Amino acid sequence: MRYELYYWPSIPGRGEFVRLALEDAGADYVDVARSRRRGMGMAAMLRLLKDASVARLPFAPPFLRAGRQVVGQTANILLFLGPGLRLAPADEAGRLWVHQVQLTIADCVDEAHNVHHPIAAGLYYEDQKPEALKAARHFTRERIPKFLGYFETLLARSPRGGWLTGRDASYADLSLFHLLSGLRYAFPRTMKKLQPGYRRLGSLALRTAERPRLAAYLASERRLPFNEQGIFRHYPELDRP
Amino acid sequence: MRYELYYWPSIPGRGEFVRLALEDAGADYVDVARSRRRGMGMAAMLRLLKDASVARLPFAPPFLRAGRQVVGQTANILLFLGPGLRLAPADEAGRLWVHQVQLTIADCVDEAHNVHHPIAAGLYYEDQKPEALKAARHFTRERIPKFLGYFETLLARSPRGGWLTGRDASYADLSLFHLLSGLRYAFPRTMKKLQPGYRRLGSLALRTAERPRLAAYLASERRLPFNEQGIFRHYPELDRP
Repeated sequence: MRYELYYWPSIPGRGEFVRLALEDAGADYVDVARSRRRGMGMAAMLRLLKDASVARLPFAPPFLRAGRQVVGQTANILLFLGPGLRLAPADEAGRLWVHQVQLTIADCVDEAHNVHHPIAAGLYYEDQKPEALKAARHFTRERIPKFLGYFETLLARSPRGGWLTGRDASYADLSLFHLLSGLRYAFPRTMKKLQPGYRRLGSLALRTAERPRLAAYLASERRLPFNEQGIFRHYPELDRP
Repeated sequence: MRYELYYWPSIPGRGEFVRLALEDAGADYVDVARSRRRGMGMAAMLRLLKDASVARLPFAPPFLRAGRQVVGQTANILLFLGPGLRLAPADEAGRLWVHQVQLTIADCVDEAHNVHHPIAAGLYYEDQKPEALKAARHFTRERIPKFLGYFETLLARSPRGGWLTGRDASYADLSLFHLLSGLRYAFPRTMKKLQPGYRRLGSLALRTAERPRLAAYLASERRLPFNEQGIFRHYPELDRP
């Protein structure tokens, strides 16, 4: 099965959580909006969003096409892909648990975005900078520690040598790795100060980055760098540890 | 199976999305934090969140206990309950679709909350009122129409006489009903202005409220009223159509 991933071509964004799972599993996929093949590219993505014959219409990218099935919402795409990519348990209770952790990671991702866009996603950062400065103080001092503390607790309750959601690695580990990478990019001073308190998270990020297929991907041109159009943006004035 | 629902006792909040599904299905459940039975109440909820023996620890309420299984994250609880309550299809693709729509409803709920708490959830509304006034203008004029337009489109593509996600009612219909009720409570002038443009949504809300078990629940004392501690708050100054 060749998957088609649809996402904005110039940012890692939410699409990256799906991309990491596909790459780690060595899955066959096309990154449609970034592809220069005939019939691909941004036009193909916008065409699908406007196609009146799609009954199960996604609200926004990312979405994934697998044969005739179109699946949207980042965490839902991972729920769909997980067992087939061997990045989620086959049993129902295990699948729900990994998904639950993924949704909590997604909550933190949303909050990281809201820091630089507290008033409206449709305005520029420059138009809401005073508000962003206020929001950043709370995010870096209260919310980041709360989320990191929760994930550290999960690792502490996981089997020795295990991963975030249990004995085996799951897509939630890859997503947590990306969340931590994004927070380090956006808030380097804050994260440098906090990291000694979360040793298990640091170790998990290292182990994840060393997974062979993931390491190859991270070193490739397929991996888009973080930038100031995405979710995780480095505005030094917002990095207030 | 008697379910135990754990959620803050004084607001409808996110727990209400789960409650509506349990009530509509006539399921046997205890609303733990609101119960005065021995061993129940808020203390029971906080005890579970601090219990070091819970490997699959939820990040925050709501969460649901079913036997020995503890399931957290609102949309994930509904994903878990859906087929058993006959509020989701049994087939995998159908389940994922209903869940995808639920996650989109949840995105709108998050944005509705962020309107009165744009800077930080940990601050009072009164401490972020100027920012909330700005955020409300964008939410009422851009975001509400965008979300309502999407759901209206889904209804237009659904089979005639059908529901949001297809021929049969699902928990997403109940959640959309609650979202619309919440938006009407919080932004009555905005919604009054917008509603004529979304006839299918209006009809869906009416049909949902008339479902016999749901109608009985809505008229009961189990249904908590909206208030200014919850997600949907009526601050007239934020209602700017």
